[in-house]
Amino acid sequence: MTGKVWLNGTIVSEEEARIAPGDRGFLLGDGLFETMRVAEGQIPHLERHLTRLEDGCATLRLPPPQRSLMQQAVADLAAASRIAHGSMRLTVTRGCGPRGLLPSPDMKPTVLLTCALATQAPLKPVRLGVSRYVRDGSSPLSRVKSLNYLPMVMARMDAVAAGFDDALLPGFRGVVAEASASNILLLLNGELVTPLVEDGALPGTSRARLLEMGLCVERSVSLGQLGAVKAAWLVSALSVQRVAAIDDFLMGEDPLMEHTLRESLFGLNASPE
Amino acid sequence: MTGKVWLNGTIVSEEEARIAPGDRGFLLGDGLFETMRVAEGQIPHLERHLTRLEDGCATLRLPPPQRSLMQQAVADLAAASRIAHGSMRLTVTRGCGPRGLLPSPDMKPTVLLTCALATQAPLKPVRLGVSRYVRDGSSPLSRVKSLNYLPMVMARMDAVAAGFDDALLPGFRGVVAEASASNILLLLNGELVTPLVEDGALPGTSRARLLEMGLCVERSVSLGQLGAVKAAWLVSALSVQRVAAIDDFLMGEDPLMEHTLRESLFGLNASPE
Repeated sequence: MTGKVWLNGTIVSEEEARIAPGDRGFLLGDGLFETMRVAEGQIPHLERHLTRLEDGCATLRLPPPQRSLMQQAVADLAAASRIAHGSMRLTVTRGCGPRGLLPSPDMKPTVLLTCALATQAPLKPVRLGVSRYVRDGSSPLSRVKSLNYLPMVMARMDAVAAGFDDALLPGFRGVVAEASASNILLLLNGELVTPLVEDGALPGTSRARLLEMGLCVERSVSLGQLGAVKAAWLVSALSVQRVAAIDDFLMGEDPLMEHTLRESLFGLNASPE
Repeated sequence: MTGKVWLNGTIVSEEEARIAPGDRGFLLGDGLFETMRVAEGQIPHLERHLTRLEDGCATLRLPPPQRSLMQQAVADLAAASRIAHGSMRLTVTRGCGPRGLLPSPDMKPTVLLTCALATQAPLKPVRLGVSRYVRDGSSPLSRVKSLNYLPMVMARMDAVAAGFDDALLPGFRGVVAEASASNILLLLNGELVTPLVEDGALPGTSRARLLEMGLCVERSVSLGQLGAVKAAWLVSALSVQRVAAIDDFLMGEDPLMEHTLRESLFGLNASPE
């Protein structure tokens, strides 16, 4: 973070910002978030992120924050933080309520917007280890970027402890789902493919844009096919990152494809993150 | 809550208590908790709860809080809150760290202890609806009372919206796992059974005590067997509650068994919660 945050309508310093100990985001992971790229002080795909947030809010039966308020929040925080390039994270929780699982109808969501400067170092290719944490693509929550991020945290920690850089989470029945914080693209049989949401892939915004541009297609990919993958990349709202290996399978390079992906998503002068 | 909380070693008013917006419990659900019964100003099964918390911390690779510190915290909060009967909730998160999924080695966990007075009304029998949210008993996290509680929140909300009181979450392959915030006991073929942890049941403290006392046995129960269940109860650290129905299957009463369960868990003068 850069010192300033936007919390429930007000810009405050990070030290002043207070989340209540009764907030259901803290107590129950009852909320969701978006991580968004900031370029030249703006969020190029803000509307797409807000649409996905609203879809998630519908699944969670949570009133989404007003779009005009969020647009203003982004502008205000960018100005207060003097951030040109980097990222913002928008977190929405169900707020504070009575004890127990059931929320009361009068609860007021907590809305937090934070920002971080872009890291300057270019992203190195990553080595992925297949995780024992499995994405359940049949759950309505697998489509929501919710605050229940512990499987992905543990998958990442396990992977790093085992000498990898990140985890590849499978879905059930031995399919590829996604990495701990990004979607995966695999060059397989001459096609650039990305796993199905039904297989456990989060419907990421960069993934959606690449599909709309016709640059990749959705397919189920089994773990047994990994040996036939020619090259692979992780894509998120912030970056395109080459995959160097998955477990013992080494992936090749395809600089032209990588350039196309990065340029299509982030433009010619895209910063690495 | 009763106005006072214990946060990281200090008793403060709930209004003063501040969770940082960068706390990983809030941002990622990266933490776990215990809900514990308070009777006569004490927690009768504190050591058992702390053991389960430590088991969970091991799974999460999180340093557990010191037992002596927690014992003092419970005594201090009980005194400050003048609470005799009710519950306390102990929440432990990985604390604040750098941006991203990977924690840094020097992070300091957040430890929060809150309390609530016992509700006076006796608990009415509950009607359960079988949920579309499924417990994955194969995940190491299914054994941890983690802050990733959104599937249980949504299952409860769905159940209430459909006219039930609570949700019965199945495991995979059509088995019974547990309710949204308690374990389930089923009187089936003359035995009192509780589903396996491998089927998605959280290893609850009251469930463990009943198993140790030989009052119930662990068995897989398929959803197809629900029609043959004579009676059922929800058990948690706080209560025993009769199940009146699961979906369209009406459950019978067994006052003697219910009395035995309540007395075995909470003693003769157990308050209803």
